[in-house]
Amino acid sequence: MEPSSGSRDARPAATPVAAVLPAGGSGERLGGATPKQFCAVQGRPLVSYTVRAMERISWISDIIVVVSPENIGTMKSIIEKYGHKRVTVVEGGITRHRSIFNGLKVFAENEFSNHLLQKPEVVIIHDAVRPFVEEDILSKVVMAAKEHGAAGAIRPLVSTVIASAANGCLDHSLERARYRASEMPQAFLFDIIYEAYQQCTDYDLDYGTECLHLALKYCKTNAKLVEGTADLWKVTYKRDLYAAESIIKDNLSQQVCVITNVKEAIAQVGFLLHESLKSQIKVEAISISLSKNDSHLQNIFSGQCYNFICINDKKYAIQETQQLVDMLEESNIPLLYPVVLISVHLDTSENISFSIGTEELTRINKFAREVKKKNILVYGLLIQYKGFSVSTLNAWDHLLLQDTVNSAAALIMALIKDRNPELTGQLLVA
Amino acid sequence: MEPSSGSRDARPAATPVAAVLPAGGSGERLGGATPKQFCAVQGRPLVSYTVRAMERISWISDIIVVVSPENIGTMKSIIEKYGHKRVTVVEGGITRHRSIFNGLKVFAENEFSNHLLQKPEVVIIHDAVRPFVEEDILSKVVMAAKEHGAAGAIRPLVSTVIASAANGCLDHSLERARYRASEMPQAFLFDIIYEAYQQCTDYDLDYGTECLHLALKYCKTNAKLVEGTADLWKVTYKRDLYAAESIIKDNLSQQVCVITNVKEAIAQVGFLLHESLKSQIKVEAISISLSKNDSHLQNIFSGQCYNFICINDKKYAIQETQQLVDMLEESNIPLLYPVVLISVHLDTSENISFSIGTEELTRINKFAREVKKKNILVYGLLIQYKGFSVSTLNAWDHLLLQDTVNSAAALIMALIKDRNPELTGQLLVA
Repeated sequence: MEPSSGSRDARPAATPVAAVLPAGGSGERLGGATPKQFCAVQGRPLVSYTVRAMERISWISDIIVVVSPENIGTMKSIIEKYGHKRVTVVEGGITRHRSIFNGLKVFAENEFSNHLLQKPEVVIIHDAVRPFVEEDILSKVVMAAKEHGAAGAIRPLVSTVIASAANGCLDHSLERARYRASEMPQAFLFDIIYEAYQQCTDYDLDYGTECLHLALKYCKTNAKLVEGTADLWKVTYKRDLYAAESIIKDNLSQQVCVITNVKEAIAQVGFLLHESLKSQIKVEAISISLSKNDSHLQNIFSGQCYNFICINDKKYAIQETQQLVDMLEESNIPLLYPVVLISVHLDTSENISFSIGTEELTRINKFAREVKKKNILVYGLLIQYKGFSVSTLNAWDHLLLQDTVNSAAALIMALIKDRNPELTGQLLVA
Repeated sequence: MEPSSGSRDARPAATPVAAVLPAGGSGERLGGATPKQFCAVQGRPLVSYTVRAMERISWISDIIVVVSPENIGTMKSIIEKYGHKRVTVVEGGITRHRSIFNGLKVFAENEFSNHLLQKPEVVIIHDAVRPFVEEDILSKVVMAAKEHGAAGAIRPLVSTVIASAANGCLDHSLERARYRASEMPQAFLFDIIYEAYQQCTDYDLDYGTECLHLALKYCKTNAKLVEGTADLWKVTYKRDLYAAESIIKDNLSQQVCVITNVKEAIAQVGFLLHESLKSQIKVEAISISLSKNDSHLQNIFSGQCYNFICINDKKYAIQETQQLVDMLEESNIPLLYPVVLISVHLDTSENISFSIGTEELTRINKFAREVKKKNILVYGLLIQYKGFSVSTLNAWDHLLLQDTVNSAAALIMALIKDRNPELTGQLLVA
């Protein structure tokens, strides 16, 4: 989900870098009342994802988020709630260019900010609604800006671009191969882009949209163009919010941690479940009782696993699950993303007409409702596993068991991929 | 979901119109092995949605789908499976223009097809990967083509378009307001576009992408540009498939039909559930026992409702549910879209520790597995409703009941919106 920053030195050595995120758009193309940067994706505003994408990069020293006056409070509370660091909120202007200019002033004009931030050598400008930006492209545009004065990510055009005549008919179409879409991030030597904004006209500030154009027009700087990847896309329409939600869910569904205890029956089912899941998802297995000092589990937490399966033999062993919930809470993982926790219970009773009492259902439901407030989504899963003991399984029993385990794995994958908060506390049966 | 065609006469009177859908792309931008037009969305290939969007419009007489040679079998089986009508599959060429040209030849060259199709006056060209095209824009481009010889849908540019110099630096950026993205559908007088394809060079056929350009260059026809809506977007990247899936799920979740029987307790809960759902979704209520002759239910079927709730007092009344399944199957609704059927059971037992037997769970699970093959997704929902009788409800009981009904409505909405095939046969508890 979040590749750790700095594993190789992608940063131009010791260059002070800051980022300005214009987030003042009104979102009219989205067709909703909430500007798109504040729309929730997996419960968290889109802008927080973009801030996080910048924040995790250690060589970006300051992140300036520029929002319209009415959203300053909202933005500040987002920063507090999600624990964002190195972020300054700045009041935007009435157009995109005026907002970016305001963001840059924080580094240059004493009267604009109560504490002047250290002027960076290079400044990144990136849209608040492009949450999937990677360190690689950021470091590429920064290095190119250092060399050329300005740089910007580009992508191939998806549609042909045409010019229309005054009568609403086609005048000419552009040869698609000769043109590119200008995307974000862009980066500039601070002095160049700040100079450009100081020089430019009110017309530029009111009707322009392209920072690279200002650097060219006012500072004679031909920006270096850097091919970006497809994930630089901008959340523009409602369908883009759907896509963002699905991509994030997809990213959260890459890995699962299976926690079993050592009892024979459980270990066996745990093993089979592990094998069945392995073809669909990366599986980490832990076969110990939970312990806060367990370094393996701590590693998994820091490895950003967002899905946990606890296999118990006790029915609805809420105590064990509670222990994991406490550890998750301390780990801060659920702060940014909903964590899925599936409590798997084996029904090993020989009784053919086993039944589930509503008291038990009520208990798991109540527990789930409590921990949902902590952004942990608890689901129950019952594996029916009766009439045979593992040690004496014959081939037919084994097939039956395998079939049940496969159903369980399918249900687990469905719960992990959907992360549906409404279904927490339910007990599914495999 | 599918507005009925022809409620007003949007069709240029008696103009013979055909459509050509190039569907030969390899989908390299998607990064998958399956070309995007054949990727499944809610279980059905994307191209089938686009074909359906054309097919439902009565004034389009022929739909030509042009696919690469290796996909002809696949395409023919899609047409058969989903019962598409008026469709001819044609073998494409190695480029987009060559494929479209092949599609047009079906109307003009005897040797190309074993039965020459009636030459249309106007031909629509539309991408197989733009499934959300509406009748309105189709009729607009057809009428404009009739008048101007050619017409195409356009959209505002999402990004600034730039030209790069040979050194990989910015040469100039285009003023965004002066340009438009050329989208689909486009429409042409058949004779004009066919003439253009006959005249154009091999270079055009191999490297060109824009039909409007050919009409301009070879027939001096300046296409009329028609502003399209945001749903004309093209499924290009994997994220677009996610978006398409979400949009279709969203469209399928607009309406629910609640079927209750007349018994007092059920009628009461049915009424409360109706009220609770009403704020979130359009609700049709039927309080009769199912009957094949019931015209109200038949109206609902033809009104393209894809979600049904049966409220029973018998536990897991599979017989009643089976009757509805049979009616749905006859209606052909599940052929194109998965239908959600939620079987709601009231637990009115006075017994405080009511329990669910595994036999019952196994029965509903087995039933759900059977009807899933028919593209009907069955889920069970138990409403705990005990310790009080409706006729003697006091205020506190009433609050409790309302709370339970609200949970039930939330679960119903979650099931309808998710349409998760893996969770069928599960019994959820409100």
